[in-house]
Amino acid sequence: MFRLDELVARLGGEVSGDASVTVRRVATLDQAGDGDLAFLANRKYLSRLQDSAASAVIVAPEVLALVKGRACIVTGDPYLYFARVAQLFNPAPVAQPGIHALASVASPVPASVEIGPGVSIEEDVEIGDEVIIGAGSHVGRGARIGRGTRLAPRVTVLDGCVVGEDCIVHSGAVIGSDGFGFAREKGGRWVKIPQVGRVVIGNQVEIGANTTIDRGALDDTVIGDGCKLDNQIQIAHNVRIGECTAIAGCVGIAGSTTIGARCMIGGQAGIIGHLSICDDVVISAGTLVSKSITRSGVYTASLPVQPHSDWVRNFAHLRHLDALVGRVRSLENQQGGPDDRNPG
Amino acid sequence: MFRLDELVARLGGEVSGDASVTVRRVATLDQAGDGDLAFLANRKYLSRLQDSAASAVIVAPEVLALVKGRACIVTGDPYLYFARVAQLFNPAPVAQPGIHALASVASPVPASVEIGPGVSIEEDVEIGDEVIIGAGSHVGRGARIGRGTRLAPRVTVLDGCVVGEDCIVHSGAVIGSDGFGFAREKGGRWVKIPQVGRVVIGNQVEIGANTTIDRGALDDTVIGDGCKLDNQIQIAHNVRIGECTAIAGCVGIAGSTTIGARCMIGGQAGIIGHLSICDDVVISAGTLVSKSITRSGVYTASLPVQPHSDWVRNFAHLRHLDALVGRVRSLENQQGGPDDRNPG
Amino acid sequence: MFRLDELVARLGGEVSGDASVTVRRVATLDQAGDGDLAFLANRKYLSRLQDSAASAVIVAPEVLALVKGRACIVTGDPYLYFARVAQLFNPAPVAQPGIHALASVASPVPASVEIGPGVSIEEDVEIGDEVIIGAGSHVGRGARIGRGTRLAPRVTVLDGCVVGEDCIVHSGAVIGSDGFGFAREKGGRWVKIPQVGRVVIGNQVEIGANTTIDRGALDDTVIGDGCKLDNQIQIAHNVRIGECTAIAGCVGIAGSTTIGARCMIGGQAGIIGHLSICDDVVISAGTLVSKSITRSGVYTASLPVQPHSDWVRNFAHLRHLDALVGRVRSLENQQGGPDDRNPG
Repeated sequence: MFRLDELVARLGGEVSGDASVTVRRVATLDQAGDGDLAFLANRKYLSRLQDSAASAVIVAPEVLALVKGRACIVTGDPYLYFARVAQLFNPAPVAQPGIHALASVASPVPASVEIGPGVSIEEDVEIGDEVIIGAGSHVGRGARIGRGTRLAPRVTVLDGCVVGEDCIVHSGAVIGSDGFGFAREKGGRWVKIPQVGRVVIGNQVEIGANTTIDRGALDDTVIGDGCKLDNQIQIAHNVRIGECTAIAGCVGIAGSTTIGARCMIGGQAGIIGHLSICDDVVISAGTLVSKSITRSGVYTASLPVQPHSDWVRNFAHLRHLDALVGRVRSLENQQGGPDDRNPG
Repeated sequence: MFRLDELVARLGGEVSGDASVTVRRVATLDQAGDGDLAFLANRKYLSRLQDSAASAVIVAPEVLALVKGRACIVTGDPYLYFARVAQLFNPAPVAQPGIHALASVASPVPASVEIGPGVSIEEDVEIGDEVIIGAGSHVGRGARIGRGTRLAPRVTVLDGCVVGEDCIVHSGAVIGSDGFGFAREKGGRWVKIPQVGRVVIGNQVEIGANTTIDRGALDDTVIGDGCKLDNQIQIAHNVRIGECTAIAGCVGIAGSTTIGARCMIGGQAGIIGHLSICDDVVISAGTLVSKSITRSGVYTASLPVQPHSDWVRNFAHLRHLDALVGRVRSLENQQGGPDDRNPG
Repeated sequence: MFRLDELVARLGGEVSGDASVTVRRVATLDQAGDGDLAFLANRKYLSRLQDSAASAVIVAPEVLALVKGRACIVTGDPYLYFARVAQLFNPAPVAQPGIHALASVASPVPASVEIGPGVSIEEDVEIGDEVIIGAGSHVGRGARIGRGTRLAPRVTVLDGCVVGEDCIVHSGAVIGSDGFGFAREKGGRWVKIPQVGRVVIGNQVEIGANTTIDRGALDDTVIGDGCKLDNQIQIAHNVRIGECTAIAGCVGIAGSTTIGARCMIGGQAGIIGHLSICDDVVISAGTLVSKSITRSGVYTASLPVQPHSDWVRNFAHLRHLDALVGRVRSLENQQGGPDDRNPG
């Protein structure tokens, strides 16, 4: 439980109203009750603020005038402030040192490490202080897990891969599976190319549930510091991702593509192989990126959803778009050429 | 082994032909042989019925006249009847009570529960009668698993999550991983928002292999009674899904979206965040839903597949569709305005 | 370490230059140093060849003239040759016979088999010689794993399923989960159809991390010899895939679809149910296939990615494409019918 003035002393911002109000939980405006600290990050929810039972609210300076008589913390970025308060109220799990009797551990580990039941750690593994290895996880020969990192239950980190410090890897993630590399013989038979690179993951990286990151074929697959990967993402061999890039669920990135820093990639987007995406690119959900991007900005390719009957009527024409363009050109020719206001 | 009249006594319908015929297995019309009961759910397979070696067939009344001299069960919905016979012939696995010696169980469990090798069950877990926890599964602290539910091998149910009664959760599913929630600092660094909600799953829910359902950020993620989720689905934090909605494989649903009851969502569809989809909506395979849907019906957005060379020719024009519309408008203006039969 | 003439004696091809050069590793042209053997498979990387520090290079005959004074192996397909050398330098893991003390094994297994910690093998399982079962994997009752196959850590093979010889199954893959089969009652409740078929996988098949393959409803789901499946693929019940077909990551294939031999399916493609795709078909990345394909060739359906503002401008028209076609038709009618060069 914290008083508002205590929060401001720790995290910055200013109190408006009664600084002795105490809060013990964060909540949404809708759900908040007595003892709850809510936040208003988006002006469009202003009406919810009026109805909220929150004991106090985090607001931006420009909204303060609208908040009559409420205890507030005023800060330039309420959502970021909310994140910091939420971390204060809900600290990350701390390692409970010890190795479970049903774990198989073939490497020396620091005394501060927590290793759950059913874990297997092979030879030559290096594990940093205060690491948590959740139940049923596997760490292959020669892998390294940095200080303060937490593997949730049932994570797989395969031979030789490196996970940095203060990372979180969620359940079912697989780091270091073989890349998809084959040469084709006459007749169509595939000959496997051994995948001898590693996966190297930086610090403060979060990797979602059932996400897969393949090891490099010859060189490494690299995920930069501060990247955040959601669930069920597939990262192919030799992909390189810059710092602080965030990738939403179900994205697939094909082999040898390079992605810059601070990119944001929407859910179910796909990026084909051997491309280069520069820094600060935003890819909309569901977009297939089939060529390199050299200028920062937002990129999109998706279809408008329609009632099925409209879709049938409109989209049948897509098969004949070239013919339609030809018909327009023909009409223009009959009228003496395209109007100069309408190039293309 | 059942006689047709025994089946009808249990499951309804009427026998046509020899009621003493015995069947012991269900099969497709193509594969059926002696002792097999097949079904005809779709008139277009009528020709297969003539050639089938099935001992008996489940048919609808309107087809009966076409079935010369065969033993039949006549019912309004042959496919539903077939499902019930198949359940009778292939009953669900029953718990073999006991806790395997290689399981780690830190909560009391009823005597009727089956717990396989490599399972880990943490503190404060509540498990109902006749639950089956498959090999290598993990149930986190404070979770609840309802009576009669079966977790297949290698399922993860994380701290505090609730799975209802008579559910089936398939291998590799992850329930309760952290939602993807971060606030962004200046400079692009992401600050994690602790995810303190739960996943709450109703009764008679089935969850496919490697499907992931994230816990809510502050409130819960909720899956209604009777929902059926296929493999490799991603459900983000704070999604709420109504009763008896069925979702096919590889679908992604982004955060805080609400989906109604009795919806059917096709494979690889995506629904972006913060939308509301009403009851009885059908989304076609591969469709990206980017706005709320307020009327029941079928919705679609996908492209017609074409030979690659046709696609190159037709789809190049998509980049210039706005210019093409301008050219048509220009032609219309030269002719004295658009024809009144063709608005738009 | 091998001399070039030793390599040629084993693998074919011819040496050009100093046949006594020794190499001990394969590498890319860019990364190669002393002792490394690189390859030039694509003429567009010719400039990298000039700068490479590789001790020797695998090249095609037509490139040989451009390679001044370097030790080379000359062969018709440098990439395929590279694959074979890479296998020679990086042999596949060999079973270290033995059953880990923390494994639960309820079937007899050959002495040559390696079984890791946390593995569970149920009754009536047949395992061939020199099989490796990685840590935490599960093999259900009555399953069969062929000689020389390797299951990576945390693989699930469920009851009755068959994996052939010399296969590799990567971490998190699930083979034999229930197909998604339900009949619908009035009111919308779903009745489960028991899934009693198996998954039958041929020889020399590779299955990627977190890929899921459902068992058949009545008949089997079948993956032919030599197929290569990447990560996070979903194969529904009763799918049948011919020999040597390769499928990239995140593909979904719906129920009862048949795919021919030697097909190549790009990443995130989808194929709806009950279709038939003939041999030697190539599906581009991100393409949704919604009808059967009866002629070999390349098939595509995807949108060109655009800056978001262009996309907004161009794609708004897609909702009105039918109206646009009507406007063009109206213009044509006013001019005396469509030009005969532009049908459609």
